[in-house]
Amino acid sequence: MKTRYDALRAAPDLPAGSGCDLSPDARWGRAVRIGRGVRVGPHTVIHDETILEDGAHVGPGCVIGEPAGTGAPAHIGTDAVIRSGSIIYADVILGAGFQGGNRLTLREGTRIGEHCVIGTATDVQADVTIGAYTRIHSQVHLAAGTRLGRFVWILPGCLFTNDNRFPLFTHPAPPVIGDFSVLAAGCLVFPGARLGVHVVAAAGAHIKGDFADYAFIQGAPARVVCDARRYFTTDDDGVSHPYPWIRHVARNYPWKDVPPEQRRVEDYLEPAP
Amino acid sequence: MKTRYDALRAAPDLPAGSGCDLSPDARWGRAVRIGRGVRVGPHTVIHDETILEDGAHVGPGCVIGEPAGTGAPAHIGTDAVIRSGSIIYADVILGAGFQGGNRLTLREGTRIGEHCVIGTATDVQADVTIGAYTRIHSQVHLAAGTRLGRFVWILPGCLFTNDNRFPLFTHPAPPVIGDFSVLAAGCLVFPGARLGVHVVAAAGAHIKGDFADYAFIQGAPARVVCDARRYFTTDDDGVSHPYPWIRHVARNYPWKDVPPEQRRVEDYLEPAP
Amino acid sequence: MKTRYDALRAAPDLPAGSGCDLSPDARWGRAVRIGRGVRVGPHTVIHDETILEDGAHVGPGCVIGEPAGTGAPAHIGTDAVIRSGSIIYADVILGAGFQGGNRLTLREGTRIGEHCVIGTATDVQADVTIGAYTRIHSQVHLAAGTRLGRFVWILPGCLFTNDNRFPLFTHPAPPVIGDFSVLAAGCLVFPGARLGVHVVAAAGAHIKGDFADYAFIQGAPARVVCDARRYFTTDDDGVSHPYPWIRHVARNYPWKDVPPEQRRVEDYLEPAP
Repeated sequence: MKTRYDALRAAPDLPAGSGCDLSPDARWGRAVRIGRGVRVGPHTVIHDETILEDGAHVGPGCVIGEPAGTGAPAHIGTDAVIRSGSIIYADVILGAGFQGGNRLTLREGTRIGEHCVIGTATDVQADVTIGAYTRIHSQVHLAAGTRLGRFVWILPGCLFTNDNRFPLFTHPAPPVIGDFSVLAAGCLVFPGARLGVHVVAAAGAHIKGDFADYAFIQGAPARVVCDARRYFTTDDDGVSHPYPWIRHVARNYPWKDVPPEQRRVEDYLEPAP
Repeated sequence: MKTRYDALRAAPDLPAGSGCDLSPDARWGRAVRIGRGVRVGPHTVIHDETILEDGAHVGPGCVIGEPAGTGAPAHIGTDAVIRSGSIIYADVILGAGFQGGNRLTLREGTRIGEHCVIGTATDVQADVTIGAYTRIHSQVHLAAGTRLGRFVWILPGCLFTNDNRFPLFTHPAPPVIGDFSVLAAGCLVFPGARLGVHVVAAAGAHIKGDFADYAFIQGAPARVVCDARRYFTTDDDGVSHPYPWIRHVARNYPWKDVPPEQRRVEDYLEPAP
Repeated sequence: MKTRYDALRAAPDLPAGSGCDLSPDARWGRAVRIGRGVRVGPHTVIHDETILEDGAHVGPGCVIGEPAGTGAPAHIGTDAVIRSGSIIYADVILGAGFQGGNRLTLREGTRIGEHCVIGTATDVQADVTIGAYTRIHSQVHLAAGTRLGRFVWILPGCLFTNDNRFPLFTHPAPPVIGDFSVLAAGCLVFPGARLGVHVVAAAGAHIKGDFADYAFIQGAPARVVCDARRYFTTDDDGVSHPYPWIRHVARNYPWKDVPPEQRRVEDYLEPAP
């Protein structure tokens, strides 16, 4: 995976699909596979053997397939959007419909499901697994090995850690976040944290240990405040129960055509392996 | 605003003003307006219809006018400096004398007054309003819709949020920060926070709710410690009263030629609308 | 140090050493000194008089020698690796064997010893001193003037500050971190903090004031919990004493061939000046 810089090409060496928009100012390693309708911006480097599926869009100033020492290339899914300034290592698999903010870093070994969104300047370390439809906002740091379920939300500035035995790093314990969970801004997630399905963490929580399905947690260290399904807010509109949030948020989700009152979290969980 | 990448030009299509320094390795959309003495570095993309006022300086590796779906272009004010690696969306207006650090992100709909400074890697989300002479340091995240007054200081790592009803995002309540306020490093600003004139927040404060003019606040959650005008420090030099800070800081401010004892915060407030 | 952008060259003007791999899409100021086996990626700018020692590797999309107003150039040490998207100012000295993550920012006046590692998107402000073999992770902010000793570890998201008299900035007091100290993720380091040798700070600590050698500290504000040498953890393997960590971590350190039980922190401290 280590092409010489002076051997990068001004055009791909394999034929691209129809309808592409490839900047003459992008630079190409060898054997890049390019589907139909792919766009690649200027000042972007696409390293050897990268796969760009149909409709993939890589903006200006990106590096795709940054060399990582494993044999596998970067694989950018159908209709994925990689915005300007992003760096995606080799051996990353990005699902269809991915939407990235500017200046993402995605390290090798990371696997991201379909229809995920990741915001500006977020740093996803190696070997992270992110389930389908998960949405991560800006300036988040996901430690190596972190596992996020499907339909998870991580708001800006959350910081994940993965080993309490620092700097020995002999006991890796990356956090595991269950489907439908929501972490508000600025949470600090400690090694070994395990959240069940649809846990909701308030902004700035320090999350250590295990939390059961639907826990609403808050504080440093975070404690359970209530069951998220009982959590309510009051304002001029009266009382509202925001959770489970599946009843209120539908855009681009699989349940977008299901009436709110018929949407159930349990219908969208994956069967246990 | 969606030029094809393969249609970007190696030179502007409109005549530039006199005395420019435009890298032949920048790439240009159509109808970019370029004043006198403008500098644009290599590997920078300037999208369609961007306006670069006299003396504007855009460093290497930037994207100006990143497409955003609104009709308006990016407008870079007189003598503004955009340092390497910055990404500024279309429909951003940057005032004269702006100074940016490296790798800023400024999203669409954002309006920044004259003589502002924003530091390295700060992420300004959409529709943010920043008053003149405001200074923001590195790695700050301003949530969509945040409103900062004039002469505000935001120190590194502050994180602004804008909606407590996450992930519904049905009740946007971006923070509003009054003129002359100062947030020290690492503050977490909650949705709906409203600070009056010259509020001072200590490092790491969690700022929720309303705080009156001149409050000195601290803690998580932040509480009022004293009136900032009574706050003092003691050291080898004796007792000092740092606030109102207008008495001590003058460089590049409108009061730079006013003697310290004659400078009054109220002389520089904008009349209520 | 202010070359015009339109005068940057498509090739260096001085002869490079043997065995180099220089992208024809890099751009060069004048009088850059290039050792043997140097690699420079596409879309990178190397400003005037930069020194690239033998084996230095600068990835794509970097800026080296970003103008800073002092007279000195950037000096990149032997076998140093600067990964994609990094910005290194003029008047920075990087020691041999440096390894950087993507999108570092290193400001002018900074001095970094041999064999240091700094992770993704970390922001090192001006005039920072970092001793040999120190390792800093992602998204750290080191305030201007910070002094880190040798063999220090700084984990992700730590935020250093340097002046309590904000926004006057009349009393700079950048933190000083002793050799072998370890700061876990998300620490906030206050102005004037001084840590002795081998202080260990738990994740999220707010570090104010002085802490003696081997203090294990925790909390906001941080308090001494115990002597780090007495700190232990218990798990399936029994009781372990992680500190001093020199007994457990050897890879790439000077003591890598010394048996663990014979490694002593005091053998690697620098004599007091």
